[in-house]
Amino acid sequence: MVVNPYYSEDLHGPHQTFELGDFKLEMGEIIRGCKLLYKTHGKLNQKKDNAILFPHMWSGTPKAMEGFIGKGRPLDPEKYFIILPGQFGNGFSSSPSNTPTPHDRGAFPKVTIGDDVVAQHRLITEQFGIEELQLILGWSMGAQQTYEWAVRFPDMVKCAVPFAGTARTTPHNYLWVTAFEDALKSDPNFNDGFFEDARLCHVGLRRHSQLWGVMGLCQEFYKKETWRDVGFSSLEDFQHGFWDAYFLPMDPNNLICMGWKWKHGDVSRHTCGDLRAALGGIKAKTYVVAFTHDMFFPMADCEAEQKMIPDSELRIVNSLWAHFGMFCMSPSEKEQIDKILFDALHA
Amino acid sequence: MVVNPYYSEDLHGPHQTFELGDFKLEMGEIIRGCKLLYKTHGKLNQKKDNAILFPHMWSGTPKAMEGFIGKGRPLDPEKYFIILPGQFGNGFSSSPSNTPTPHDRGAFPKVTIGDDVVAQHRLITEQFGIEELQLILGWSMGAQQTYEWAVRFPDMVKCAVPFAGTARTTPHNYLWVTAFEDALKSDPNFNDGFFEDARLCHVGLRRHSQLWGVMGLCQEFYKKETWRDVGFSSLEDFQHGFWDAYFLPMDPNNLICMGWKWKHGDVSRHTCGDLRAALGGIKAKTYVVAFTHDMFFPMADCEAEQKMIPDSELRIVNSLWAHFGMFCMSPSEKEQIDKILFDALHA
Repeated sequence: MVVNPYYSEDLHGPHQTFELGDFKLEMGEIIRGCKLLYKTHGKLNQKKDNAILFPHMWSGTPKAMEGFIGKGRPLDPEKYFIILPGQFGNGFSSSPSNTPTPHDRGAFPKVTIGDDVVAQHRLITEQFGIEELQLILGWSMGAQQTYEWAVRFPDMVKCAVPFAGTARTTPHNYLWVTAFEDALKSDPNFNDGFFEDARLCHVGLRRHSQLWGVMGLCQEFYKKETWRDVGFSSLEDFQHGFWDAYFLPMDPNNLICMGWKWKHGDVSRHTCGDLRAALGGIKAKTYVVAFTHDMFFPMADCEAEQKMIPDSELRIVNSLWAHFGMFCMSPSEKEQIDKILFDALHA
Repeated sequence: MVVNPYYSEDLHGPHQTFELGDFKLEMGEIIRGCKLLYKTHGKLNQKKDNAILFPHMWSGTPKAMEGFIGKGRPLDPEKYFIILPGQFGNGFSSSPSNTPTPHDRGAFPKVTIGDDVVAQHRLITEQFGIEELQLILGWSMGAQQTYEWAVRFPDMVKCAVPFAGTARTTPHNYLWVTAFEDALKSDPNFNDGFFEDARLCHVGLRRHSQLWGVMGLCQEFYKKETWRDVGFSSLEDFQHGFWDAYFLPMDPNNLICMGWKWKHGDVSRHTCGDLRAALGGIKAKTYVVAFTHDMFFPMADCEAEQKMIPDSELRIVNSLWAHFGMFCMSPSEKEQIDKILFDALHA
């Protein structure tokens, strides 16, 4: 198996490693020598009451969330101890691309959002002795993890801010993830996930990134040629320079592993399928954030769940970047998101 | 080349043939022995002032439009002479699947919406001596043809009703068609369009129909399990029984041929790219019909064009079936569409 240079600390910065040992997964298999890689910013205070947990989205690593952290901003490392856990399948924590045989590549076991959250729980309790999180937040699959935390450990979460994600994956969203997975698998060299080098699967990766071009943004984005605002010269230049450039260096098995988690995200499995009961048990003050134009997690889907959470508010981030409003491509999104985080930390 | 039993009159009813001879296409090539196949309902009166033209959508044939025609309904064959032209690439009119070498299969030339409309113009003038259409209407690519008619022959169209389509294909829509085309081309047996039998390409056809499952309907449709209303038992049953069952018998080259026309639909090519000038020249009373939840032709895109048409109105069809509201899966859509057509014919 060729080592993929994309998943290197040169590109993603230094990580710390938390050894999970023989980690039993929700679906039944065990990852032996399982690892959770993470980053931290700031310092845990003596009372251990300044911790924020900020898991990342599908396809990302902790680095993707660091842009929200900064002196003078709501997530201020001079005040808070901010933990950025890597999710399984991200290429740093245990993943298809870095796990030895027999669990390598196409044989990597199915992991769930619940497995990520259990691993994170062990990290913050065993490694740091933290008993309560001041805030847990996340975008997209980070939101799924946020919901899982708030439902699973209601007494440990003071405030929760899920951005552009749902507590239970909707059927349309399930179809969407299946479609982009199948695009990756369609590569003539995919070989049931047992390719030697991800670069051999560039046809599938490109086909997959093309679908992100269609569903990841919105009609109005393209009509207004919003890509011009960030320096692209044509629609084709945007497709290649934005989507292909982002996805081509990645490992298809890692994306599929994280996609399976995404598809099966459902906090109601803790309450025999009763979503109202699951969300009704959340004790955290919760700000459910929906993004206008988001085709994955439409405002209506986010709002329907928000209404089931006792101490919650719906907040809207307005952006033509749709689901990718989180990237703060214009100052407006940064302002809107910082305002929500400020309110959350001062609720 | 194996004859595809799907494109037979047994399944689609009898057609008439209009011989176009050596037909020069907008993009420059000539189809020799070019044919336009069509159906008619009702009789042309002596004054020749009761003709309605009703072109069909992408992937369809004239049969798909016959459900809107009936005694006592707005499109009443006892009053009107209704012409249902086949579009190029539909498997009956000249298409990749039925054209002899050297223009067979993957070598079929690029055709445009303009070519369809020129062929239809020859049909109604040369074959029937019609000088004015009382109404031209169509859904989706039928709407594209409707706009092309109204812009190209403004003095020949009394009323135009484009349903769920645009006069100029939007960039997002272009990306969408490219994505589903590429799914068809991804089939391991596609062979650059030179497969012997479309049934060999079922993997690509299924991949393509999966994308229609994602983009062709809307999030709310799946959330409400609207597919139950038409007898499907599960999400998977709907995917296979609705989308796969519809697309699997078809010819990928035909779908790609029609898709290329769809992508390049743009009436502003008659006015050097000035869409306002093109639409501003329409003389027909025009009812622009947008479908709620349509992800291909969102209401905002339809409305933006409507505002450029002098004597026009925007009408909305409300349906969870999104773009496929046209299929009248519930009585509500039939009522809404019939009402619009009644108004159009009595304007």
